[in-house]
Amino acid sequence: MIPAQVKLVEVGPRDGLQNEPGTIDTADKVALVQALADAGLPVVESGAFVSPKWVPQMADSGEVLKTIERHKDTVYSALTPNIKGFELALDAGADEVAIFGAASEAFSQKNINCSIAESLERFQPVLDAAKQANIPVRGYVSCVLGCPYEGEVSPQKVTDVTRQLLDMGCYEVSLGDTIGVGTPKSTQAMLKSVLSQVPVEQIGVHFHDTYGQALANILTALQLGVRTVDSAVAGLGGCPYAKGASGNVATEDVLYMLNGMGISTGVDLDRVVAAGERITQILGKTNQSKVARAMLAQKA
Amino acid sequence: MIPAQVKLVEVGPRDGLQNEPGTIDTADKVALVQALADAGLPVVESGAFVSPKWVPQMADSGEVLKTIERHKDTVYSALTPNIKGFELALDAGADEVAIFGAASEAFSQKNINCSIAESLERFQPVLDAAKQANIPVRGYVSCVLGCPYEGEVSPQKVTDVTRQLLDMGCYEVSLGDTIGVGTPKSTQAMLKSVLSQVPVEQIGVHFHDTYGQALANILTALQLGVRTVDSAVAGLGGCPYAKGASGNVATEDVLYMLNGMGISTGVDLDRVVAAGERITQILGKTNQSKVARAMLAQKA
Repeated sequence: MIPAQVKLVEVGPRDGLQNEPGTIDTADKVALVQALADAGLPVVESGAFVSPKWVPQMADSGEVLKTIERHKDTVYSALTPNIKGFELALDAGADEVAIFGAASEAFSQKNINCSIAESLERFQPVLDAAKQANIPVRGYVSCVLGCPYEGEVSPQKVTDVTRQLLDMGCYEVSLGDTIGVGTPKSTQAMLKSVLSQVPVEQIGVHFHDTYGQALANILTALQLGVRTVDSAVAGLGGCPYAKGASGNVATEDVLYMLNGMGISTGVDLDRVVAAGERITQILGKTNQSKVARAMLAQKA
Repeated sequence: MIPAQVKLVEVGPRDGLQNEPGTIDTADKVALVQALADAGLPVVESGAFVSPKWVPQMADSGEVLKTIERHKDTVYSALTPNIKGFELALDAGADEVAIFGAASEAFSQKNINCSIAESLERFQPVLDAAKQANIPVRGYVSCVLGCPYEGEVSPQKVTDVTRQLLDMGCYEVSLGDTIGVGTPKSTQAMLKSVLSQVPVEQIGVHFHDTYGQALANILTALQLGVRTVDSAVAGLGGCPYAKGASGNVATEDVLYMLNGMGISTGVDLDRVVAAGERITQILGKTNQSKVARAMLAQKA
């Protein structure tokens, strides 16, 4: 059941940096995206075309995408919440775009001020334009294992939103434990519900390590056949709902586990560690990858 | 297969503090042991009766054990590598003692300057005296998933040493991934080998989180029916083989996973978090439990 191969989707330059305080030079972002592609990561989410007023960290995503030297085998993707963002992403040369829905009504209301159903409707023009332009669209579902406002989220709700995103034209949906509260039991229940209606090839998992559960949950997903895993180099990002808590699961830690399990990814761990250490030093923070800390400690 | 109940063995005051730099007041150790027992941890490894020349951090273990106010349901244990240590532990009122062997010849030679077989022979007087005094003896096996000197360790070797410790009279053997290099695959292979010859009730697992793999490995052990798990409050301890790397898996993080999986432990998470935060502040270090950091961040 455990897959022989896993696709790692690197979200550090977007989901990671978006949640880091302070600004980073465009040149450093370009270097980060390039280093991650050099390491063999097949998909690098390189930016977001959102309002710079709300998310100033992503204001230079167009420049990042236009400046990077490209690998022909790497998919450079971007988050595009609306048609304006989509057009900018297309102009900047994004290979793939992403839209997002929540599995929690309270989260949808508080976060984007509309219902889940309304939020999905608003994405339809992006999906139509992407189809026209032959650009694949990835869907994200947030709060799949819990919501900061309404607590528990039902697996059925996650399944419904996932189904809708796929029906609208997404080729893949990434299921996000936005606040990192899931454990193997809730992960299994949620995934079993989704997989009862959706082929496993169309599902990715996206865990935050807020409570240190991410690798155990990813193992649970692998045991159910999931073969697409999101992660962020150096565990970039934080949790807007618990200041000081951990962010995305670190790519290095996921990769160490996959390597140990004999699961092939095509990614070079040493290069990811180097890329993570560089951006960590630029941010002036502690590297959140335990693998990186252990490997760097052994070299020292 | 996953057990309904797990026994958590708290090793923070011993395996944790032993590997923390600096000295801690005896009163703070006493407060820590008491707080952990108050939290409901069934076994608290409270010290080690070893040479104070080699392990100055444990020089006051006798005083700690003599000073604590005792819960009648808590087992206060101590590491006793020889008969002198055993007698001191008995005098101080230890309810249980522990001895240790390695699954790696190179580690045994470098660490205690004798072969594995010789090291086990040396423990026989402790086991004999413990039997006489009606004190249960726990065995530890180190390097079960890798050795800092010889790399890979064969599951058969782990099985042999485990079998020997049980044959000598240990009631339980804790299998330790001393350098934290294991992943779910190697954990499964090692445990399957051991469990082919030893009843699961006699096995505990002891993971260090050096590479962030501990919870995924513990999940793997639970899936094989293991029901005894070692951990250290606040992830105390470090890795002597990689300075700056993580130490023991944090009790809080294990407990969060077990709680989420509906596995009963009798331990109060809030109290463990409070105990861990107190000792962390005394040590002047970052709390290594992600659960503690997230819970404390949410309260703030």
